[in-house]
Amino acid sequence: MTTTEQEQAALDQLYRDFGAHHLIPLWTARDDLMPLTPQPAAVPHVWRWSDLYPLAQRSGDLVPVGRGGERRAIALANPGLPGLPYATPTLWAAIQYLGPRETAPSHHHTQTAFRFVIDGEGVWTNVEGDPVAMRRGDLLLTPSWAFHEHQNVTDHPMAWIDGLDIPLVHQLDAGFFEFGPDKLTVTETPDRSRNERLWGHPGLRPIGAQDQPSSPLMAYRWAHTDAALTAQLELADEGHPTALGPGHAGVRYSNPTTGGDALVTIRTEFHRLRAGVRTEPSRIVGSAVWQVFEGEATVALGEQRFPVEKGDLFVVPSWCEFSLEAGTQVDLFRFSDEPVYDALGFTGLARQAAGRQENR
Amino acid sequence: MTTTEQEQAALDQLYRDFGAHHLIPLWTARDDLMPLTPQPAAVPHVWRWSDLYPLAQRSGDLVPVGRGGERRAIALANPGLPGLPYATPTLWAAIQYLGPRETAPSHHHTQTAFRFVIDGEGVWTNVEGDPVAMRRGDLLLTPSWAFHEHQNVTDHPMAWIDGLDIPLVHQLDAGFFEFGPDKLTVTETPDRSRNERLWGHPGLRPIGAQDQPSSPLMAYRWAHTDAALTAQLELADEGHPTALGPGHAGVRYSNPTTGGDALVTIRTEFHRLRAGVRTEPSRIVGSAVWQVFEGEATVALGEQRFPVEKGDLFVVPSWCEFSLEAGTQVDLFRFSDEPVYDALGFTGLARQAAGRQENR
Amino acid sequence: MTTTEQEQAALDQLYRDFGAHHLIPLWTARDDLMPLTPQPAAVPHVWRWSDLYPLAQRSGDLVPVGRGGERRAIALANPGLPGLPYATPTLWAAIQYLGPRETAPSHHHTQTAFRFVIDGEGVWTNVEGDPVAMRRGDLLLTPSWAFHEHQNVTDHPMAWIDGLDIPLVHQLDAGFFEFGPDKLTVTETPDRSRNERLWGHPGLRPIGAQDQPSSPLMAYRWAHTDAALTAQLELADEGHPTALGPGHAGVRYSNPTTGGDALVTIRTEFHRLRAGVRTEPSRIVGSAVWQVFEGEATVALGEQRFPVEKGDLFVVPSWCEFSLEAGTQVDLFRFSDEPVYDALGFTGLARQAAGRQENR
Amino acid sequence: MTTTEQEQAALDQLYRDFGAHHLIPLWTARDDLMPLTPQPAAVPHVWRWSDLYPLAQRSGDLVPVGRGGERRAIALANPGLPGLPYATPTLWAAIQYLGPRETAPSHHHTQTAFRFVIDGEGVWTNVEGDPVAMRRGDLLLTPSWAFHEHQNVTDHPMAWIDGLDIPLVHQLDAGFFEFGPDKLTVTETPDRSRNERLWGHPGLRPIGAQDQPSSPLMAYRWAHTDAALTAQLELADEGHPTALGPGHAGVRYSNPTTGGDALVTIRTEFHRLRAGVRTEPSRIVGSAVWQVFEGEATVALGEQRFPVEKGDLFVVPSWCEFSLEAGTQVDLFRFSDEPVYDALGFTGLARQAAGRQENR
Repeated sequence: MTTTEQEQAALDQLYRDFGAHHLIPLWTARDDLMPLTPQPAAVPHVWRWSDLYPLAQRSGDLVPVGRGGERRAIALANPGLPGLPYATPTLWAAIQYLGPRETAPSHHHTQTAFRFVIDGEGVWTNVEGDPVAMRRGDLLLTPSWAFHEHQNVTDHPMAWIDGLDIPLVHQLDAGFFEFGPDKLTVTETPDRSRNERLWGHPGLRPIGAQDQPSSPLMAYRWAHTDAALTAQLELADEGHPTALGPGHAGVRYSNPTTGGDALVTIRTEFHRLRAGVRTEPSRIVGSAVWQVFEGEATVALGEQRFPVEKGDLFVVPSWCEFSLEAGTQVDLFRFSDEPVYDALGFTGLARQAAGRQENR
Repeated sequence: MTTTEQEQAALDQLYRDFGAHHLIPLWTARDDLMPLTPQPAAVPHVWRWSDLYPLAQRSGDLVPVGRGGERRAIALANPGLPGLPYATPTLWAAIQYLGPRETAPSHHHTQTAFRFVIDGEGVWTNVEGDPVAMRRGDLLLTPSWAFHEHQNVTDHPMAWIDGLDIPLVHQLDAGFFEFGPDKLTVTETPDRSRNERLWGHPGLRPIGAQDQPSSPLMAYRWAHTDAALTAQLELADEGHPTALGPGHAGVRYSNPTTGGDALVTIRTEFHRLRAGVRTEPSRIVGSAVWQVFEGEATVALGEQRFPVEKGDLFVVPSWCEFSLEAGTQVDLFRFSDEPVYDALGFTGLARQAAGRQENR
Repeated sequence: MTTTEQEQAALDQLYRDFGAHHLIPLWTARDDLMPLTPQPAAVPHVWRWSDLYPLAQRSGDLVPVGRGGERRAIALANPGLPGLPYATPTLWAAIQYLGPRETAPSHHHTQTAFRFVIDGEGVWTNVEGDPVAMRRGDLLLTPSWAFHEHQNVTDHPMAWIDGLDIPLVHQLDAGFFEFGPDKLTVTETPDRSRNERLWGHPGLRPIGAQDQPSSPLMAYRWAHTDAALTAQLELADEGHPTALGPGHAGVRYSNPTTGGDALVTIRTEFHRLRAGVRTEPSRIVGSAVWQVFEGEATVALGEQRFPVEKGDLFVVPSWCEFSLEAGTQVDLFRFSDEPVYDALGFTGLARQAAGRQENR
Repeated sequence: MTTTEQEQAALDQLYRDFGAHHLIPLWTARDDLMPLTPQPAAVPHVWRWSDLYPLAQRSGDLVPVGRGGERRAIALANPGLPGLPYATPTLWAAIQYLGPRETAPSHHHTQTAFRFVIDGEGVWTNVEGDPVAMRRGDLLLTPSWAFHEHQNVTDHPMAWIDGLDIPLVHQLDAGFFEFGPDKLTVTETPDRSRNERLWGHPGLRPIGAQDQPSSPLMAYRWAHTDAALTAQLELADEGHPTALGPGHAGVRYSNPTTGGDALVTIRTEFHRLRAGVRTEPSRIVGSAVWQVFEGEATVALGEQRFPVEKGDLFVVPSWCEFSLEAGTQVDLFRFSDEPVYDALGFTGLARQAAGRQENR
């Protein structure tokens, strides 16, 4: 063997020995492990409501809800994360469907959850024994470790969107799950849940209530969201500067005991754009899922452009350039993992790193 | 001189020399300086609305509102703090009176302020250019350093309660004050202020808004307060445990960006007791001022008992044992300096110290 | 009577009626209550060590230490606060003197305390049973509600400086005090206290230790302080920018569990200025007491200038313009009430208010 | 077809349609996605120093250090995470080797890093231009986005352990990386780095220094760690209770500006066990890597038991029961991802969930 051949043989042997000892060198992997900017495996993608809802209906006919499977929920599986039921590396998003008079049994888990209702009504979700009506435009929370079950009290089916931090908790091996009673524990169907009666008053908190990591207000009603968005747009019309720019209103669902995000690991927001408004292209570290609630828009994700309409869901991976253009006035629900990045200081770091690169 | 006389002479000379050098020994003052438990100079006292309002009316006839004096406000002067216009060592409380069509000129100061309206309407307070209607049962905030002016747009006078942290800021030599324009800067009289339109939606915050030390929501309307109290009492009726016990509801006005007190240095609350309800005697470090909004009660302050009715104000000094007994259903507004004690860790210390003494 | 006379009579009667009802109008007091900038009653003042120490010695001969008086401590009484043993509206500062073989009995209180040793050694202060040697240049803490007693184990007297938040706690009616055993509870005189052995390692904390409001490290030794100051000056000599400017080094005593001030209500610092260095005139809300530890300087307080030398103490009232000029290299210990202002947001407010006035 | 066959065919078609639309149902995956307790893919594993060091040496002969590969670092690849160079789902751990007179070029990245030195000396790591000596027992930090390069100034090689949050940052798509100059930017080799001179004094912080997310003290010297551990064991010998129990001392490397972990996403600790001491079996959410610094022990990981000695590294996956038994007196360095779990509230949740299960 020549010297070079000998060296190559020695190197080959070295790599074999690495493998045998469960070692992987950095120098062959640095570029993938530590790219210059985020290179997500997750890709931008749109799921059509016109596909999702019929599939949920067919599931309703074919698949029972019960112990084990627990929920008739069908998850968005990002095409860039093959085999995984993950919308993004941190977020699980699904359409859940409950047939007439059906119930879904009680359980709880450390994973954080919410429901957003694109359409319909007639289901109550009982959260720690508090029955919460679900209606069009409402956001309903199921904080970590709160027992919850659902019942449909009507003769028509109902579908909605579930969001959870399942991928994050799974990656971090931090999930606990426990089954509750098989039979429905609560059958009342009050118009207003107890948590709303206690916490649903602007700027007022019950004396004696402790701060909580997740919002003790667990139902954010459409009437309030709609009114807040309407007011923001009107204030802009009257000449008052707004954070999101002209023709764009937005609210964040918040925890009244801390002022922070309503949920610890998931940010939840609602946006309204006037017809013709186009947002500035921007990108963040962290990933988001959007659902069109009403109206039509075009979404630009990196180099791609997608028309979207009522019920459509789309994913914005980390650091993907993103903008919206409203065809009609358009209302959108959004959730993201940004609280995770904020808690770990990644949001500020990314801003600093990106700023440096842009200033070259 | 005997030895004793010589010693006494030496001691007298020592104390004279202390005085000459601006020194005071601890051993002659320890008991006053560092009592075993708080020994407030401020005393419990009740001011009657039936006294206050006519005096305010007479001031309206005799005293103009204008530059220098700035406001026609008459302060509660605790009888235990002679010569000082202080309700308690930290809190200033006054009745303010504005005649028909009168205005009060613009100024701002680092002292924190609020207004609470016991009766009437027709005045707008313009806070940083945002006109805020003042009506019965409303709490209106004027955070530190916000320019504010008042105008009465009606043909009848209006009176309300002002609360400020003037004594605290004065004691700490931390006050700044600046005059604004002499003429009214805003004359609009909208039904809803801009801050309410932006922030007055339960659990929703505008995207892009920063956290603020004082609440950006600056008007807390009676309808919300009343609804929250009603709901709390009903929840208790339905068998759900509440923090304040049966027949007693209470809300704290809070800052939606932090979940904390609406104002940095002043706690603001509203209480409702059902007829016949009696609270457990309790005491805290920190002082409070209460105003009866509606109904009749008896207040026990230390060994004293006072009947109180609509409009009456009373002071609870630090560590004074306090309880309420509702004659009719009674509604009360309360403010205190507890956020100061919380921020300095005094609340927890007092609990620890008191617990030790009680456990003997 | 003329109309004017009648009006004046009515006004006089109004003011009499105010008095009778314990009321004081704002308009006659606004200027004093709410000045344009802080107008402290406390004044700049210097106490000479050459006065203080002999007076303490004479007290040692004439006044016993014992139950009730508790400590042979002689407090600085600000000439602007007549009759009060207060260095500033919030701070109590005293020289304490313990004769040969004397002890001071055990007690505890919610007031926060420290000792700073200008000279000497031989006294141990036992804090919650942990004996802490007191030596030249050391700062020793006595957090709220910690039992403490002192013993002098030598044949010579020892004096040091005590600092407490007595005026603040008194004003806020938040003080609790309790006597401990009359006899010394601990007689050991170890070189290093247990708290130092556990906490006195840079950047290392014991696993399992909870955060505490006051520093669990209760002895800050001169050798460390001196080394830190020396290093800062050397770094500046080598061309590295420093926060306090050339020739001026400074350290803040901090709580290793939070990074904040070592004590909740009192800031403690040590400064070193090279000979000839002059600090920029500056002012803050909050008051401070300084003691010269070594060297000579001139201090400018408002319009006044005072030469100061070893042991001299001086007071800087709130918002008083202050600068130092070092005659020789000068070392100074400083304590202030700034944590109180920071906790209440007053520091930022003052900066904002002052900035506005300076930018006119 | 029978009804059952028809149903099965419909179901098969449904699942095919799910696949075609990038959807995955929950009911087939719930058990894996949301297990009753954490079921980590990562497994307990021990890497022997006697394997690692010779492989690093061979790499030193065969593989240059340079641009692109950047570092001669060989990562522990958990056998339960095939193909991934991850010690745990969140932590990257490697042996790094620098030959005589070698340098490693400058770069920075948002990933957080540290080095721990098991043996040897002679390398300086320059962090933001501050040269930091690396010696036996030292922990050296490289906070996010700090430029760093290494140089070996001796004629012998040196190896140490690198720890980074690469897997976490990769999973979250939050990494930024930038190359610095190819040539060494600093060649000084001072005994003490500037950050130590400024920050390495117990309980003292430079006046004017802002709080920082990562510790501004970037070198934790063995002498301090050793002294702290020695003192803890002695205090226990003297009868004082300690958090970790008799014969077990431990320190956490902390950020002097906040009191929290020295690094935002990685906890770093050092433990010492007296010969014969056995820790109670325990488990946490979050994963850890340990390295034996000196002595011999047996580690129990779930059902497995491994003898370990100087230099050996082992991994404790999330929720894996863990205990140590010291053969000789044994010193161990430990790092974990617990700050991530703390920041997201997962630590408290797990305690709550586990408590419930244990209390059945």
